[in-house]
Amino acid sequence: VKQVGGIGEFELIRLLTSDSVYDERTIVGVGDDCSVYEITKGNYILSTCDMLVEDVHFSRKWASGFFIGCKSIASSLSDIAAMGGKPLFALTSIALPSATPVEFAQDVYIGIRSICRDYHVAVLGGDTVRSPDKVVIDIAMIGECPHGKYILRSGAKAGDAIVVTGALGDSAAGLELLNGNISECDTERRSHLVEAHLAPEPRSREGLFLAQHFELHSMIDVSDGLAGDLRHICEMSGVGARIWSDKIPLSQSLEQMCRAAAFDPLQFALSGGEDYELLFTLDPNELDRLRKQWYDEFDVPLSHIGEIDGAAGVIRLVSADNQERPLTALSFDHFGPRHSKPGL
Amino acid sequence: VKQVGGIGEFELIRLLTSDSVYDERTIVGVGDDCSVYEITKGNYILSTCDMLVEDVHFSRKWASGFFIGCKSIASSLSDIAAMGGKPLFALTSIALPSATPVEFAQDVYIGIRSICRDYHVAVLGGDTVRSPDKVVIDIAMIGECPHGKYILRSGAKAGDAIVVTGALGDSAAGLELLNGNISECDTERRSHLVEAHLAPEPRSREGLFLAQHFELHSMIDVSDGLAGDLRHICEMSGVGARIWSDKIPLSQSLEQMCRAAAFDPLQFALSGGEDYELLFTLDPNELDRLRKQWYDEFDVPLSHIGEIDGAAGVIRLVSADNQERPLTALSFDHFGPRHSKPGL
Repeated sequence: VKQVGGIGEFELIRLLTSDSVYDERTIVGVGDDCSVYEITKGNYILSTCDMLVEDVHFSRKWASGFFIGCKSIASSLSDIAAMGGKPLFALTSIALPSATPVEFAQDVYIGIRSICRDYHVAVLGGDTVRSPDKVVIDIAMIGECPHGKYILRSGAKAGDAIVVTGALGDSAAGLELLNGNISECDTERRSHLVEAHLAPEPRSREGLFLAQHFELHSMIDVSDGLAGDLRHICEMSGVGARIWSDKIPLSQSLEQMCRAAAFDPLQFALSGGEDYELLFTLDPNELDRLRKQWYDEFDVPLSHIGEIDGAAGVIRLVSADNQERPLTALSFDHFGPRHSKPGL
Repeated sequence: VKQVGGIGEFELIRLLTSDSVYDERTIVGVGDDCSVYEITKGNYILSTCDMLVEDVHFSRKWASGFFIGCKSIASSLSDIAAMGGKPLFALTSIALPSATPVEFAQDVYIGIRSICRDYHVAVLGGDTVRSPDKVVIDIAMIGECPHGKYILRSGAKAGDAIVVTGALGDSAAGLELLNGNISECDTERRSHLVEAHLAPEPRSREGLFLAQHFELHSMIDVSDGLAGDLRHICEMSGVGARIWSDKIPLSQSLEQMCRAAAFDPLQFALSGGEDYELLFTLDPNELDRLRKQWYDEFDVPLSHIGEIDGAAGVIRLVSADNQERPLTALSFDHFGPRHSKPGL
């Protein structure tokens, strides 16, 4: 009998969602960061949900209830941001083993509420049930498109500039540190990287700002690693891409830790998960205006890392000395056979 | 250290949700069947979510993937119906152990889609993740209030008639049969009761019809057993109630099974769970018009089972020979110490 662990996550999702149930108000169904639904004439709502399972997505060994709560909300906030939307409210379902300390459960909710307050998201209830042995949290989030616009993965065009916010790979490096797989790291760098994993800062204001002021052709959040998420854009847009390795934004903490531990920081950036940065493409003639308006508003760095071309499905990494190689780094796969990579 | 299994479900929910995060568009937050949110000026959306955990809410020993999928959707549909709303779309998150047969996972989705098609609900995606050992399904559902009206638990008034749809207790009896706790039951009754548990029929059309044509004062769905759910209405409305035991609707299958197995069918009706019938209160002068219009539209029975009075929090069960006793039957409690009752 074929088991879900024997086929890849994306193949499984394809099998499970092949027969869709949409109605005439479904604008975008399964397959983007959020679905889009026309809730009243001309008004779109975005929806997404994200499930976190103990010992798959987090461990009570290294994360407090508070941080688990924070982390559980981040992914949905990031999905709404990646559509250029504004998050409105969250629904929270949680399954708890009977032996869970009440204080832990309260801390999870304090973490959830704390992030929701920061991002002006209402918490409208959910479900609380018993679990035989693992904590499971599912967050559903609804957002709106205040300017009537939403950005899909599928609109990238040959010639587009590829831009990414923030720095990549810190979250995956933080996870390796938490798991004890890397020990060569001083305290200051360690806190920076671990915090990137435990308390990520989804780009909600940034996503909304981009959708409001620029004609983005495509956008996705970097949750599976740059290589995997860029591949989603390319596949859904029917294009290819070239990425310049020396332009991929890396934090000083990641570079210094990798130097000390003899790791390649690019591997974390390309294959790591849960960065919750925004990756988007737009007309390169817009770059100057983008940089100017962006830095008037935000401290977060913006990096022009490559360009879209017409070679459908072909993604190349170009090194500083102009060597090209196919970008084949693995994306975060929940079910695949490659369980040793960062992120799982 | 105090554990979640040591305090009741409702006390836990109170602790977890005591500090609410609402905004000015939150009309109803935590505590009713659904939350109500003003999505655009004068337009309300309903939202609810329900989590099902393997070996707590279902067992793969006695239910196919198809029925688990059906069952996972029922509770959310019923919550929307209990507000008098119309379900629009569902988001489905599922955690699967790696060793789960792919066919089982597909069957769950076929079950979900089958019910969603029947009820005209779009399935707009969700999340698919790995679980260490149990299947977990969380359904979030969004609905609308097409007539601008939604019915709360909190509006019951002294003098109201208490009315319930369908028959009560079948689902809980079906669960006992599935678990092998009762064997005295012929094949035909057994199928009826087991089907009530595995493939419940939430009262979506009925809930919408009631909200559209009648001034209901309060409504809830019977998911925790009549006693518990009536208590929710009484507590949230600050009223009491009297229920006539001989008016509580019981199916022939339940009565006959209980006669053969020497059980009290009322116990299933009062304390059983997951009936997904609607329990509501309204001005008794409306009963004649209600019955007439109802039976023009539906085959489902409607039972006038009691009346609301002013004695806040006091709920009495009145027997056929006019004996009164307090209605104290236990509600379904996910964490409480009473794990042997039907429903858990």
